[in-house]
Amino acid sequence: MSISSFYGLIRKLEEYWSGYGCSILLPYTSELGAATLHPATIFSSISAEDVKIAYVQPVIRPADGMYGKNPNRLYQHHQYQVLIKPSPDNLQDLYLESLKHVGIDIRNHDIRFVEDDWENPSVGAWGMGWEVWCDGMEISQFTYMQQVGGISLSSIPGELAYGLERIAMYLQDVDNVGSLFYSKDTVKYMQVYGENERQFSIASLESYDYELLLNQFNDNVAQAKIFIERKLPLVAYDHCVKTSHILNLIDSRGFISVSERAKYILDIRGLVKQCCELFIEQEGSCA
Amino acid sequence: MSISSFYGLIRKLEEYWSGYGCSILLPYTSELGAATLHPATIFSSISAEDVKIAYVQPVIRPADGMYGKNPNRLYQHHQYQVLIKPSPDNLQDLYLESLKHVGIDIRNHDIRFVEDDWENPSVGAWGMGWEVWCDGMEISQFTYMQQVGGISLSSIPGELAYGLERIAMYLQDVDNVGSLFYSKDTVKYMQVYGENERQFSIASLESYDYELLLNQFNDNVAQAKIFIERKLPLVAYDHCVKTSHILNLIDSRGFISVSERAKYILDIRGLVKQCCELFIEQEGSCA
Repeated sequence: MSISSFYGLIRKLEEYWSGYGCSILLPYTSELGAATLHPATIFSSISAEDVKIAYVQPVIRPADGMYGKNPNRLYQHHQYQVLIKPSPDNLQDLYLESLKHVGIDIRNHDIRFVEDDWENPSVGAWGMGWEVWCDGMEISQFTYMQQVGGISLSSIPGELAYGLERIAMYLQDVDNVGSLFYSKDTVKYMQVYGENERQFSIASLESYDYELLLNQFNDNVAQAKIFIERKLPLVAYDHCVKTSHILNLIDSRGFISVSERAKYILDIRGLVKQCCELFIEQEGSCA
Repeated sequence: MSISSFYGLIRKLEEYWSGYGCSILLPYTSELGAATLHPATIFSSISAEDVKIAYVQPVIRPADGMYGKNPNRLYQHHQYQVLIKPSPDNLQDLYLESLKHVGIDIRNHDIRFVEDDWENPSVGAWGMGWEVWCDGMEISQFTYMQQVGGISLSSIPGELAYGLERIAMYLQDVDNVGSLFYSKDTVKYMQVYGENERQFSIASLESYDYELLLNQFNDNVAQAKIFIERKLPLVAYDHCVKTSHILNLIDSRGFISVSERAKYILDIRGLVKQCCELFIEQEGSCA
């Protein structure tokens, strides 16, 4: 499979990071608004163990749904995520080498690291970081994580999140995601995802019912609380990410104000914090 | 990455089927009880278009959760799924060749095709098929699909579902999933999935609350109906698979009788049938 197909790009990144010693994990089986929210990243970050993992993750952002008509914004895009803890001193060099590996000739392009500290309020995470720009377009986020679940990390993970559609567009020299090939010369990206984009955009922008979403939000919060009580942080966290996705649907339908949204995010953040504290407590008691 | 790691096996199957011309898709972002339930398989099966796809899918069966202690049964196992329509005449040869490709010397082993027609009542699907046994252990299901969504197929797809843990145990010559390596010689399978197995088994066998599950079942049914009404079959189907997973949780907690379960499955099947009819109607009007 050629580098220049969308799927070939995933394969090349996997080959590179696997060669570095990362375990390649599978995408998570619930909707996530960022690859960072995968429990593997959240719990590996706070674990006492070292970690080297990489995975592709579909990233679902209901408010970004554009019916499959926008050249750059999608209901579902894809990130390639790498997490290494403790972060190696040469992570920036490793990252640049990975760009070469997928076919970007970094000598002939304007690669810039633009300071941009990253945070995700829902999971109480932030890090010192940079956006990576290639010829003026953001293609990755590069972060040294400082806190997850509101917990300050003693061993600092380096996190890379590659924007796969952006990089694939770059490699295929097209300026519209609709022109991308998914598999080399045979299947277009929109043959795989176009109808999905159209229908989920209509749903998330026009059709979801508020009462049903609110019920599901509250039921998932209640489940997260039950599983925290039962000391099952991975199950509780699963319901936290479901809650977060439902909140994103409520938000994309315009049902809540900015201040209501902030309050709900604080609720989720509080639950995630409890999941993380439980995880640390349990890991400590096993050691 | 060596063939004999769990992840290396996925990669080898992908390499083989990609070489045959399959597009490699990503796992679906909701819990599925079988790789067949991925919308790519359901809708490609009934589509007028030919299809060649392959993907790995985490398969979640709450009633099979064994706290990570059973040598063979898991809350979450993994299937590698191949769907080719129309099915090529030599699909059985292609399958045997794929076993060789992943490292099974089929001349020295007792490979049998044991007749076993397959059906999934929740999605109104059935096919003529065989279990594939290697030295007495089932390692794959081989199916010529006849109906999906209760709709008789005019072009017959060949479907292969490889049981990845089973094949990996075979290749690594171990008789307990707990002894598997996930990545070659470094990371054990249970380092990745063990705590997940333990916690989700406790949740699905002992902890989920009936009222909350029932609420979520009903809310997802209501959403599926709304999206059928809105003529968004992919979104409606997403809520059907969520409904199906929640029903599996209700069932694994022992909250319903066999006859109640059958009634709920009929409800889901009716909704999936409507999704499939809508899909065909829309595809027909675009052609």
